[in-house]
Amino acid sequence: MNQTMQALLGLSLCLNAFFISFGVWLILKRGGLPYLAMRVPLLKKLGVSIVQIASFNFPYYDHRQSQLVLLPIQSSNIVFLGDSITDEGEWAELLANSAIRNRGISSDTTIGVLDRLPNLITPQPQKIFLMIGVNDLSNLGRSPAEIIQTYTEILIQIRARSPQTHVFIQSVLPINPKLFLGFVTNKNIRTLNELLQHLADEFSHSYIDLHSQFLDANQQLDTKYTSDGIHLNGIAYQRWADLINPYVLS
Amino acid sequence: MNQTMQALLGLSLCLNAFFISFGVWLILKRGGLPYLAMRVPLLKKLGVSIVQIASFNFPYYDHRQSQLVLLPIQSSNIVFLGDSITDEGEWAELLANSAIRNRGISSDTTIGVLDRLPNLITPQPQKIFLMIGVNDLSNLGRSPAEIIQTYTEILIQIRARSPQTHVFIQSVLPINPKLFLGFVTNKNIRTLNELLQHLADEFSHSYIDLHSQFLDANQQLDTKYTSDGIHLNGIAYQRWADLINPYVLS
Repeated sequence: MNQTMQALLGLSLCLNAFFISFGVWLILKRGGLPYLAMRVPLLKKLGVSIVQIASFNFPYYDHRQSQLVLLPIQSSNIVFLGDSITDEGEWAELLANSAIRNRGISSDTTIGVLDRLPNLITPQPQKIFLMIGVNDLSNLGRSPAEIIQTYTEILIQIRARSPQTHVFIQSVLPINPKLFLGFVTNKNIRTLNELLQHLADEFSHSYIDLHSQFLDANQQLDTKYTSDGIHLNGIAYQRWADLINPYVLS
Repeated sequence: MNQTMQALLGLSLCLNAFFISFGVWLILKRGGLPYLAMRVPLLKKLGVSIVQIASFNFPYYDHRQSQLVLLPIQSSNIVFLGDSITDEGEWAELLANSAIRNRGISSDTTIGVLDRLPNLITPQPQKIFLMIGVNDLSNLGRSPAEIIQTYTEILIQIRARSPQTHVFIQSVLPINPKLFLGFVTNKNIRTLNELLQHLADEFSHSYIDLHSQFLDANQQLDTKYTSDGIHLNGIAYQRWADLINPYVLS
């Protein structure tokens, strides 16, 4: 009996050693501590501000931002600014408009957008289409009110440095919680959108309600538009493009 | 002593259970079995052909491909065809050429490119810039010779359906094994590139050696071009664009 238990313990400990090594290897492979900090919203609640710093430390974020700063914006440009949902759209093609510049970066938040704004608004582009905030909720655990604070700073900066730019505030899209296992809820997204609509009014910017156009009967992101509950397929992008085309042309 | 061991065993088993549950949750969250099959090259060696099927089952791949099929190619277009390394370049901007169409998809392989080729070549585009193969090595565990077989089929199809198209075969770029912990080696990449150069000669296509332009003194991807050892930053894309611009303009 004692021997069986000893053998079992040995096996169990080996398994644990393997799991822990594998976990460490996986974390190192994916970017080490910044990755870990980014993925564990709990750390935020422990007051670890590294979470916010970390959101800019992903290789993809760095790579893309280092490319975007080399690509100049012109005053004739229409800038699509946001996170992965903007990043993944081939906007110039979807809208058949070569003045469009995709400035979405996957994983970005209002904090990231505020940070990279100067580059984008100094040349005073014609229009900016904004969709940002879902990763603030999902990855940083920020509240809608906190997000609106940063969003307000974004709009103040645009108005100050590029007063002629037409700003279009696009609602944050719903998610489908059956497919997307993040820390964001549609309730929070709806609250954020209500605040965004007020904010747009305050600044006399256009608010574009895309949210309601992508819902199923349960008020969630319709599965005909997504495979993972948050990102979008081609039909969704086509629909989105159709919905905003009047604003692009206006 | 016996009690201590019992306690230790209990604790260790609980940890086992936790790690296993966490692993299962993680796999399910990321896409279940197809994800697993995709991530474990060993399964390939066990003859599990699901690995190949799975490479098309990522949400991102599905999403992007479903968008790209909605965006028509025209005979005046210059198509950039490949994986993430092509996908992540803002080619139309980098080369200041609105005829360019980005048809890269992250995680793609020669098998994926062959699969989605018909859509892209039926309209007989002006030029195609190809860079593909590193994920065949890294994710599918295929040999350079196997990759060349599929690459050959790609070139045969292009010649058959779009004989006027100028095809540019770009070498596969080096990786930096200190930063990128994948299953691909620079030795394999060099072998693949040698075979690609022969293949380009066979078809009388231009072979563009980019590989040698991104090496450090140790014959690895220079860290000044990458944060993760395989993907590229802005300086790298700028350099790449400068190197191929004569072929784009030719």
